Amino acid sequence: MYVAVMDNIFLLVLVTLLSVVQNVFFALKVEKECTGQHSKNHSEAFERLSCANRNCMDTYPTFLAVLWCAGICLSQAPAAFAGIIYLVVRQKYFVGYLGQTCQSTPGFLFGKRILFFLSLMCVVGIINHLMLTYGGSDYKEYIQTITKIVSTLLLLP
Amino acid sequence: MYVAVMDNIFLLVLVTLLSVVQNVFFALKVEKECTGQHSKNHSEAFERLSCANRNCMDTYPTFLAVLWCAGICLSQAPAAFAGIIYLVVRQKYFVGYLGQTCQSTPGFLFGKRILFFLSLMCVVGIINHLMLTYGGSDYKEYIQTITKIVSTLLLLP
Amino acid sequence: MYVAVMDNIFLLVLVTLLSVVQNVFFALKVEKECTGQHSKNHSEAFERLSCANRNCMDTYPTFLAVLWCAGICLSQAPAAFAGIIYLVVRQKYFVGYLGQTCQSTPGFLFGKRILFFLSLMCVVGIINHLMLTYGGSDYKEYIQTITKIVSTLLLLP
Repeated sequence: MYVAVMDNIFLLVLVTLLSVVQNVFFALKVEKECTGQHSKNHSEAFERLSCANRNCMDTYPTFLAVLWCAGICLSQAPAAFAGIIYLVVRQKYFVGYLGQTCQSTPGFLFGKRILFFLSLMCVVGIINHLMLTYGGSDYKEYIQTITKIVSTLLLLP
Repeated sequence: MYVAVMDNIFLLVLVTLLSVVQNVFFALKVEKECTGQHSKNHSEAFERLSCANRNCMDTYPTFLAVLWCAGICLSQAPAAFAGIIYLVVRQKYFVGYLGQTCQSTPGFLFGKRILFFLSLMCVVGIINHLMLTYGGSDYKEYIQTITKIVSTLLLLP
Repeated sequence: MYVAVMDNIFLLVLVTLLSVVQNVFFALKVEKECTGQHSKNHSEAFERLSCANRNCMDTYPTFLAVLWCAGICLSQAPAAFAGIIYLVVRQKYFVGYLGQTCQSTPGFLFGKRILFFLSLMCVVGIINHLMLTYGGSDYKEYIQTITKIVSTLLLLP
Protein backbone atom coordinates (compact mmCIF):
# COMPACT_ATOMS: atom_id res chain seq x y z
CA MET A 1 0.00 0.00 0.00
CA TYR A 2 2.79 2.37 0.96
CA VAL A 3 4.40 2.43 -2.49
CA ALA A 4 1.02 3.01 -4.17
CA VAL A 5 0.36 6.02 -1.92
CA MET A 6 3.81 7.49 -2.49
CA ASP A 7 3.46 7.02 -6.25
CA ASN A 8 0.40 9.25 -6.18
CA ILE A 9 1.75 12.05 -4.03
CA PHE A 10 5.51 12.40 -4.35
CA LEU A 11 5.29 15.22 -6.90
CA LEU A 12 2.92 17.08 -4.59
CA VAL A 13 5.36 16.62 -1.72
CA LEU A 14 8.13 18.06 -3.90
CA VAL A 15 6.08 21.15 -4.77
CA THR A 16 5.13 21.57 -1.10
CA LEU A 17 8.80 21.42 -0.14
CA LEU A 18 9.65 24.04 -2.76
CA SER A 19 6.91 26.31 -1.42
CA VAL A 20 8.24 25.86 2.12
CA VAL A 21 11.73 26.85 0.96
CA GLN A 22 10.19 29.92 -0.67
CA ASN A 23 8.30 30.78 2.54
CA VAL A 24 11.53 30.57 4.53
CA PHE A 25 13.23 32.78 1.90
CA PHE A 26 10.47 35.39 2.26
CA ALA A 27 10.61 35.28 6.06
CA LEU A 28 14.40 35.66 6.05
CA LYS A 29 14.09 38.65 3.71
CA VAL A 30 11.65 40.32 6.09
CA GLU A 31 13.81 39.49 9.10
CA LYS A 32 16.94 40.86 7.42
CA GLU A 33 15.14 44.06 6.48
CA CYS A 34 13.79 44.34 9.99
CA THR A 35 17.10 44.01 11.79
CA GLY A 36 19.34 45.54 9.13
CA GLN A 37 18.62 49.25 8.99
CA HIS A 38 17.31 50.98 12.03
CA SER A 39 16.73 54.66 11.51
CA LYS A 40 16.21 56.08 8.01
CA ASN A 41 13.46 54.92 5.69
CA HIS A 42 13.28 51.86 7.87
CA SER A 43 9.58 51.81 8.40
CA GLU A 44 8.52 52.21 4.80
CA ALA A 45 10.64 49.48 3.24
CA PHE A 46 9.92 47.14 6.11
CA GLU A 47 6.23 47.94 5.93
CA ARG A 48 6.19 47.03 2.25
CA LEU A 49 8.18 43.81 2.66
CA SER A 50 6.06 42.78 5.60
CA CYS A 51 2.87 43.51 3.65
CA ALA A 52 4.04 41.50 0.64
CA ASN A 53 5.00 38.64 2.93
CA ARG A 54 1.65 38.79 4.68
CA ASN A 55 -0.31 38.70 1.43
CA CYS A 56 1.71 35.67 0.36
CA MET A 57 1.16 33.93 3.70
CA ASP A 58 -2.56 34.71 3.71
CA THR A 59 -3.14 32.82 0.48
CA TYR A 60 -0.71 30.01 1.29
CA PRO A 61 -3.15 27.66 3.10
CA THR A 62 -5.69 28.16 0.32
CA PHE A 63 -3.07 27.25 -2.27
CA LEU A 64 -1.90 24.16 -0.36
CA ALA A 65 -5.46 22.93 0.15
CA VAL A 66 -6.40 23.28 -3.52
CA LEU A 67 -3.11 21.80 -4.69
CA TRP A 68 -3.46 18.64 -2.63
CA CYS A 69 -7.18 18.20 -3.32
CA ALA A 70 -6.60 18.54 -7.05
CA GLY A 71 -3.63 16.19 -6.94
CA ILE A 72 -5.47 13.51 -4.98
CA CYS A 73 -8.83 13.79 -6.73
CA LEU A 74 -7.63 13.82 -10.29
CA SER A 75 -3.94 13.38 -11.04
CA GLN A 76 -0.79 14.72 -9.53
CA ALA A 77 1.31 15.71 -12.55
CA PRO A 78 -0.84 18.65 -13.81
CA ALA A 79 -1.51 19.75 -10.23
CA ALA A 80 2.20 19.82 -9.41
CA PHE A 81 2.89 21.64 -12.67
CA ALA A 82 0.30 24.31 -11.82
CA GLY A 83 1.77 24.50 -8.33
CA ILE A 84 5.24 25.25 -9.69
CA ILE A 85 3.83 27.98 -11.93
CA TYR A 86 2.06 29.42 -8.89
CA LEU A 87 5.37 29.54 -7.02
CA VAL A 88 6.99 31.39 -9.93
CA VAL A 89 4.10 33.88 -9.99
CA ARG A 90 4.44 34.35 -6.26
CA GLN A 91 8.16 34.99 -6.54
CA LYS A 92 7.48 37.61 -9.23
CA TYR A 93 4.76 39.14 -7.05
CA PHE A 94 7.02 39.36 -4.00
CA VAL A 95 9.90 40.91 -5.95
CA GLY A 96 7.61 43.24 -7.92
CA TYR A 97 5.79 44.35 -4.79
CA LEU A 98 9.02 45.66 -3.31
CA GLY A 99 9.62 48.09 -6.12
CA GLN A 100 6.11 49.46 -5.95
CA THR A 101 5.69 52.60 -3.83
CA CYS A 102 1.93 53.05 -3.96
CA GLN A 103 0.21 50.78 -1.51
CA SER A 104 -3.32 51.25 -2.77
CA THR A 105 -3.24 48.29 -5.15
CA PRO A 106 -1.63 45.48 -3.22
CA GLY A 107 -3.19 42.82 -5.37
CA PHE A 108 -4.34 40.54 -2.63
CA LEU A 109 -5.07 37.82 -5.08
CA PHE A 110 -2.34 36.84 -7.47
CA GLY A 111 -2.41 33.61 -9.41
CA LYS A 112 -6.20 33.64 -9.64
CA ARG A 113 -6.07 31.67 -12.88
CA ILE A 114 -4.00 28.90 -11.31
CA LEU A 115 -6.24 28.64 -8.26
CA PHE A 116 -9.24 28.49 -10.59
CA PHE A 117 -7.62 25.75 -12.66
CA LEU A 118 -6.82 23.68 -9.55
CA SER A 119 -10.36 24.13 -8.20
CA LEU A 120 -11.74 23.02 -11.54
CA MET A 121 -9.58 19.90 -11.33
CA CYS A 122 -11.10 19.11 -7.91
CA VAL A 123 -14.64 19.55 -9.21
CA VAL A 124 -13.98 17.38 -12.26
CA GLY A 125 -12.40 14.73 -10.04
CA ILE A 126 -15.39 14.65 -7.70
CA ILE A 127 -17.90 14.52 -10.58
CA ASN A 128 -15.92 11.68 -12.12
CA HIS A 129 -15.90 9.82 -8.80
CA LEU A 130 -19.66 10.20 -8.43
CA MET A 131 -20.23 9.02 -12.00
CA LEU A 132 -18.00 6.04 -11.33
CA THR A 133 -19.87 5.16 -8.14
CA TYR A 134 -23.44 5.66 -9.33
CA GLY A 135 -23.19 5.34 -13.11
CA GLY A 136 -20.43 2.82 -13.56
CA SER A 137 -18.71 4.72 -16.34
CA ASP A 138 -15.08 5.77 -15.89
CA TYR A 139 -13.68 8.61 -17.95
CA LYS A 140 -10.63 9.08 -15.74
CA GLU A 141 -8.09 8.27 -18.46
CA TYR A 142 -9.58 10.76 -20.90
CA ILE A 143 -9.91 13.45 -18.26
CA GLN A 144 -6.33 13.06 -17.12
CA THR A 145 -5.08 13.40 -20.69
CA ILE A 146 -7.22 16.48 -21.27
CA THR A 147 -6.06 17.99 -17.96
CA LYS A 148 -2.42 17.53 -18.90
CA ILE A 149 -2.99 19.31 -22.21
CA VAL A 150 -5.00 22.11 -20.62
CA SER A 151 -2.41 22.64 -17.88
CA THR A 152 0.11 23.79 -20.49
CA LEU A 153 -2.24 26.68 -21.25
CA LEU A 154 -1.26 28.09 -17.84
CA LEU A 155 2.11 28.96 -19.37
CA LEU A 156 0.41 31.65 -21.48
CA PRO A 157 1.06 35.06 -19.93
CA MET B 1 -7.44 1.50 -3.78
CA TYR B 2 -8.16 4.81 -5.44
CA VAL B 3 -11.95 4.48 -5.24
CA ALA B 4 -11.79 3.50 -1.56
CA VAL B 5 -9.74 6.60 -0.75
CA MET B 6 -12.04 8.90 -2.71
CA ASP B 7 -15.10 7.40 -1.01
CA ASN B 8 -13.70 8.47 2.34
CA ILE B 9 -12.71 12.01 1.46
CA PHE B 10 -14.85 13.44 -1.33
CA LEU B 11 -17.17 15.28 1.08
CA LEU B 12 -14.13 16.82 2.78
CA VAL B 13 -12.81 17.92 -0.60
CA LEU B 14 -16.17 19.54 -1.35
CA VAL B 15 -16.14 21.50 1.92
CA THR B 16 -12.52 22.52 1.31
CA LEU B 17 -13.48 23.79 -2.14
CA LEU B 18 -16.36 25.79 -0.66
CA SER B 19 -14.03 27.33 1.91
CA VAL B 20 -11.58 28.26 -0.85
CA VAL B 21 -14.37 29.96 -2.79
CA GLN B 22 -15.27 31.86 0.39
CA ASN B 23 -11.61 32.87 0.91
CA VAL B 24 -11.45 34.22 -2.63
CA PHE B 25 -14.72 36.09 -2.03
CA PHE B 26 -13.27 37.69 1.13
CA ALA B 27 -10.03 38.63 -0.64
CA LEU B 28 -11.92 40.17 -3.57
CA LYS B 29 -14.03 42.20 -1.12
CA VAL B 30 -10.89 43.56 0.52
CA GLU B 31 -9.27 44.26 -2.84
CA LYS B 32 -12.36 46.07 -4.12
CA GLU B 33 -12.56 48.19 -0.97
CA CYS B 34 -8.85 48.92 -1.24
CA THR B 35 -8.90 50.14 -4.84
CA GLY B 36 -12.43 51.54 -4.91
CA GLN B 37 -12.47 54.67 -2.79
CA HIS B 38 -9.30 56.62 -2.36
CA SER B 39 -9.76 59.66 -0.19
CA LYS B 40 -12.63 59.88 2.30
CA ASN B 41 -13.18 57.37 5.10
CA HIS B 42 -10.99 55.05 3.10
CA SER B 43 -8.72 53.97 5.85
CA GLU B 44 -11.36 53.08 8.38
CA ALA B 45 -13.54 50.85 6.24
CA PHE B 46 -10.52 49.25 4.66
CA GLU B 47 -8.93 48.74 8.06
CA ARG B 48 -12.03 46.95 9.28
CA LEU B 49 -12.42 44.77 6.19
CA SER B 50 -8.74 43.92 6.27
CA CYS B 51 -8.93 43.05 9.97
CA ALA B 52 -11.97 40.81 9.49
CA ASN B 53 -10.23 39.09 6.59
CA ARG B 54 -7.07 38.60 8.64
CA ASN B 55 -8.95 37.06 11.57
CA CYS B 56 -10.63 34.66 9.15
CA MET B 57 -7.32 33.78 7.49
CA ASP B 58 -5.54 33.29 10.83
CA THR B 59 -7.92 30.55 11.89
CA TYR B 60 -8.21 28.99 8.44
CA PRO B 61 -5.27 26.52 8.71
CA THR B 62 -6.49 25.45 12.16
CA PHE B 63 -9.94 24.80 10.77
CA LEU B 64 -8.62 22.85 7.76
CA ALA B 65 -6.34 20.71 9.93
CA VAL B 66 -9.10 19.79 12.40
CA LEU B 67 -11.63 19.19 9.62
CA TRP B 68 -9.41 16.72 7.77
CA CYS B 69 -8.17 14.97 10.89
CA ALA B 70 -11.72 14.48 12.15
CA GLY B 71 -12.89 13.32 8.74
CA ILE B 72 -10.10 10.80 8.32
CA CYS B 73 -9.99 9.55 11.91
CA LEU B 74 -13.68 9.02 12.45
CA SER B 75 -16.09 9.59 9.59
CA GLN B 76 -16.43 12.22 6.93
CA ALA B 77 -20.15 13.01 6.91
CA PRO B 78 -20.41 14.68 10.36
CA ALA B 79 -17.06 16.40 9.84
CA ALA B 80 -18.18 17.84 6.51
CA PHE B 81 -21.48 18.89 8.06
CA ALA B 82 -19.68 20.71 10.88
CA GLY B 83 -17.38 22.27 8.28
CA ILE B 84 -20.31 23.70 6.35
CA ILE B 85 -21.78 25.16 9.55
CA TYR B 86 -18.37 26.69 10.27
CA LEU B 87 -18.39 28.34 6.83
CA VAL B 88 -21.84 29.79 7.51
CA VAL B 89 -20.67 31.13 10.89
CA ARG B 90 -17.60 32.64 9.22
CA GLN B 91 -19.75 34.33 6.58
CA LYS B 92 -21.93 35.82 9.32
CA TYR B 93 -18.82 36.90 11.22
CA PHE B 94 -17.31 38.62 8.18
CA VAL B 95 -20.52 40.44 7.29
CA GLY B 96 -21.29 41.34 10.90
CA TYR B 97 -17.78 42.59 11.51
CA LEU B 98 -18.17 45.16 8.77
CA GLY B 99 -21.11 46.85 10.42
CA GLN B 100 -19.35 47.03 13.77
CA THR B 101 -17.57 50.29 14.46
CA CYS B 102 -15.87 49.50 17.75
CA GLN B 103 -12.72 47.52 17.21
CA SER B 104 -12.11 46.53 20.80
CA THR B 105 -13.95 43.22 20.58
CA PRO B 106 -12.88 41.65 17.34
CA GLY B 107 -13.75 38.16 18.45
CA PHE B 108 -10.65 36.41 17.29
CA LEU B 109 -12.20 33.06 17.84
CA PHE B 110 -15.54 32.43 16.23
CA GLY B 111 -16.96 28.96 15.82
CA LYS B 112 -15.29 27.70 19.00
CA ARG B 113 -18.02 25.13 19.47
CA ILE B 114 -17.46 23.68 16.01
CA LEU B 115 -13.69 23.52 16.43
CA PHE B 116 -14.23 21.81 19.79
CA PHE B 117 -16.61 19.30 18.24
CA LEU B 118 -14.16 18.47 15.45
CA SER B 119 -11.29 18.10 17.94
CA LEU B 120 -13.43 15.78 20.02
CA MET B 121 -14.07 13.68 16.91
CA CYS B 122 -10.29 13.36 16.39
CA VAL B 123 -9.72 12.30 19.99
CA VAL B 124 -12.53 9.73 19.88
CA GLY B 125 -11.18 8.40 16.57
CA ILE B 126 -7.68 7.97 17.99
CA ILE B 127 -8.94 6.31 21.18
CA ASN B 128 -11.04 3.95 19.08
CA HIS B 129 -8.03 3.13 16.91
CA LEU B 130 -5.88 2.37 19.97
CA MET B 131 -8.61 0.19 21.47
CA LEU B 132 -8.90 -1.63 18.15
CA THR B 133 -5.15 -2.19 17.98
CA TYR B 134 -4.47 -3.20 21.57
CA GLY B 135 -7.85 -4.39 22.84
CA GLY B 136 -9.39 -5.95 19.78
CA SER B 137 -12.81 -4.40 20.29
CA ASP B 138 -14.26 -2.14 17.61
CA TYR B 139 -16.96 0.37 18.47
CA LYS B 140 -16.57 2.35 15.27
CA GLU B 141 -20.12 1.70 14.04
CA TYR B 142 -21.72 2.88 17.28
CA ILE B 143 -19.45 5.89 17.52
CA GLN B 144 -20.19 6.96 13.96
CA THR B 145 -23.91 6.75 14.59
CA ILE B 146 -23.60 8.74 17.81
CA THR B 147 -21.41 11.33 16.09
CA LYS B 148 -23.98 11.83 13.35
CA ILE B 149 -26.70 12.43 15.93
CA VAL B 150 -24.55 14.76 18.03
CA SER B 151 -23.49 16.77 14.98
CA THR B 152 -27.07 17.94 14.50
CA LEU B 153 -26.80 19.65 17.90
CA LEU B 154 -24.42 22.12 16.22
CA LEU B 155 -27.46 23.58 14.51
CA LEU B 156 -28.66 24.98 17.86
CA PRO B 157 -27.86 28.68 18.05
CA MET C 1 -7.15 -0.46 4.54
CA TYR C 2 -8.52 1.90 7.17
CA VAL C 3 -6.47 0.45 10.04
CA ALA C 4 -3.27 0.56 7.97
CA VAL C 5 -3.82 4.24 7.22
CA MET C 6 -4.57 5.10 10.84
CA ASP C 7 -1.49 3.18 12.01
CA ASN C 8 0.65 5.47 9.89
CA ILE C 9 -0.88 8.79 10.88
CA PHE C 10 -2.34 8.70 14.38
CA LEU C 11 0.75 10.27 15.99
CA LEU C 12 0.63 13.06 13.41
CA VAL C 13 -3.05 13.62 14.22
CA LEU C 14 -2.17 13.85 17.91
CA VAL C 15 0.52 16.49 17.29
CA THR C 16 -1.86 18.40 15.02
CA LEU C 17 -4.48 18.37 17.77
CA LEU C 18 -1.93 19.65 20.29
CA SER C 19 -0.97 22.46 17.93
CA VAL C 20 -4.63 23.38 17.47
CA VAL C 21 -5.07 23.56 21.25
CA GLN C 22 -2.02 25.82 21.39
CA ASN C 23 -3.42 28.03 18.62
CA VAL C 24 -6.67 28.40 20.53
CA PHE C 25 -4.68 29.23 23.68
CA PHE C 26 -2.78 31.97 21.80
CA ALA C 27 -5.98 33.38 20.30
CA LEU C 28 -7.70 33.45 23.69
CA LYS C 29 -4.69 35.25 25.18
CA VAL C 30 -4.90 37.92 22.47
CA GLU C 31 -8.67 38.20 22.86
CA LYS C 32 -8.39 38.56 26.65
CA GLU C 33 -5.72 41.25 26.30
CA CYS C 34 -7.82 43.01 23.70
CA THR C 35 -11.01 43.21 25.74
CA GLY C 36 -9.45 43.37 29.20
CA GLN C 37 -7.80 46.76 29.55
CA HIS C 38 -9.09 49.65 27.56
CA SER C 39 -7.19 52.84 28.20
CA LYS C 40 -3.67 52.77 29.61
CA ASN C 41 -0.77 50.95 27.94
CA HIS C 42 -3.44 49.06 26.06
CA SER C 43 -2.06 49.50 22.62
CA GLU C 44 1.50 48.47 23.36
CA ALA C 45 0.84 45.20 25.15
CA PHE C 46 -1.92 44.31 22.71
CA GLU C 47 0.32 45.22 19.79
CA ARG C 48 3.02 42.89 21.06
CA LEU C 49 0.68 39.99 21.79
CA SER C 50 -1.00 40.41 18.44
CA CYS C 51 2.38 40.51 16.69
CA ALA C 52 3.61 37.37 18.46
CA ASN C 53 0.38 35.62 17.60
CA ARG C 54 0.65 36.70 13.97
CA ASN C 55 4.21 35.45 13.63
CA CYS C 56 3.12 32.11 15.05
CA MET C 57 0.13 31.92 12.73
CA ASP C 58 2.18 32.90 9.68
CA THR C 59 4.47 29.92 10.04
CA TYR C 60 1.74 27.52 11.10
CA PRO C 61 0.71 26.27 7.62
CA THR C 62 4.37 25.79 6.71
CA PHE C 63 4.92 23.73 9.85
CA LEU C 64 1.81 21.61 9.26
CA ALA C 65 2.74 20.94 5.63
CA VAL C 66 6.29 19.86 6.45
CA LEU C 67 5.16 17.79 9.44
CA TRP C 68 2.65 15.77 7.44
CA CYS C 69 4.89 15.37 4.39
CA ALA C 70 7.76 14.11 6.56
CA GLY C 71 5.46 11.80 8.48
CA ILE C 72 3.91 10.28 5.37
CA CYS C 73 7.06 10.09 3.27
CA LEU C 74 9.38 8.58 5.82
CA SER C 75 8.04 7.60 9.24
CA GLN C 76 5.70 9.20 11.69
CA ALA C 77 7.45 8.75 15.04
CA PRO C 78 10.45 11.07 14.45
CA ALA C 79 8.22 13.57 12.64
CA ALA C 80 5.76 13.69 15.54
CA PHE C 81 8.67 13.99 17.99
CA ALA C 82 10.09 16.95 16.06
CA GLY C 83 6.58 18.42 15.92
CA ILE C 84 6.24 18.30 19.69
CA ILE C 85 9.63 20.00 20.13
CA TYR C 86 8.46 22.66 17.66
CA LEU C 87 5.37 23.26 19.79
CA VAL C 88 7.54 23.66 22.90
CA VAL C 89 9.79 26.13 21.05
CA ARG C 90 6.74 28.05 19.88
CA GLN C 91 5.36 28.24 23.41
CA LYS C 92 8.72 29.60 24.64
CA TYR C 93 8.76 32.05 21.72
CA PHE C 94 5.27 33.33 22.47
CA VAL C 95 5.91 33.73 26.20
CA GLY C 96 9.37 35.24 25.65
CA TYR C 97 8.08 37.65 23.05
CA LEU C 98 5.70 39.19 25.57
CA GLY C 99 8.47 40.21 27.92
CA GLN C 100 10.48 41.78 25.14
CA THR C 101 9.97 45.51 24.70
CA CYS C 102 12.05 46.18 21.61
CA GLN C 103 10.19 45.23 18.50
CA SER C 104 13.08 45.42 16.07
CA THR C 105 14.03 41.75 16.36
CA PRO C 106 10.78 39.85 16.24
CA GLY C 107 12.44 36.68 15.07
CA PHE C 108 10.05 35.81 12.31
CA LEU C 109 11.53 32.38 12.01
CA PHE C 110 11.82 30.33 15.15
CA GLY C 111 12.41 26.61 15.07
CA LYS C 112 14.46 26.82 11.89
CA ARG C 113 16.40 23.71 12.86
CA ILE C 114 13.22 21.67 13.29
CA LEU C 115 11.76 22.84 9.98
CA PHE C 116 15.07 21.98 8.34
CA PHE C 117 15.08 18.51 9.91
CA LEU C 118 11.52 17.82 8.75
CA SER C 119 12.30 19.05 5.22
CA LEU C 120 15.33 16.79 5.14
CA MET C 121 13.10 13.85 6.13
CA CYS C 122 10.82 14.65 3.17
CA VAL C 123 13.75 14.78 0.75
CA VAL C 124 15.20 11.52 2.04
CA GLY C 125 11.78 9.88 1.81
CA ILE C 126 11.32 10.97 -1.80
CA ILE C 127 14.83 9.87 -2.80
CA ASN C 128 14.21 6.51 -1.16
CA HIS C 129 10.91 6.17 -3.02
CA LEU C 130 12.57 6.96 -6.36
CA MET C 131 15.38 4.46 -5.65
CA LEU C 132 12.78 1.85 -4.75
CA THR C 133 10.83 2.50 -7.94
CA TYR C 134 13.68 2.72 -10.43
CA GLY C 135 16.53 0.87 -8.72
CA GLY C 136 14.74 -1.82 -6.77
CA SER C 137 16.74 -1.35 -3.60
CA ASP C 138 14.95 -0.44 -0.37
CA TYR C 139 16.85 1.20 2.47
CA LYS C 140 13.73 2.31 4.31
CA GLU C 141 14.45 0.28 7.46
CA TYR C 142 17.95 1.69 7.84
CA ILE C 143 16.83 5.22 7.11
CA GLN C 144 14.03 5.04 9.66
CA THR C 145 16.42 3.83 12.35
CA ILE C 146 18.92 6.58 11.51
CA THR C 147 16.15 9.19 11.51
CA LYS C 148 14.99 8.12 14.95
CA ILE C 149 18.51 8.47 16.31
CA VAL C 150 19.09 11.82 14.62
CA SER C 151 15.77 13.20 15.86
CA THR C 152 17.03 13.00 19.45
CA LEU C 153 19.72 15.53 18.47
CA LEU C 154 16.91 18.09 18.23
CA LEU C 155 16.80 18.03 22.03
CA LEU C 156 20.18 19.78 22.13
CA PRO C 157 19.68 23.45 22.93
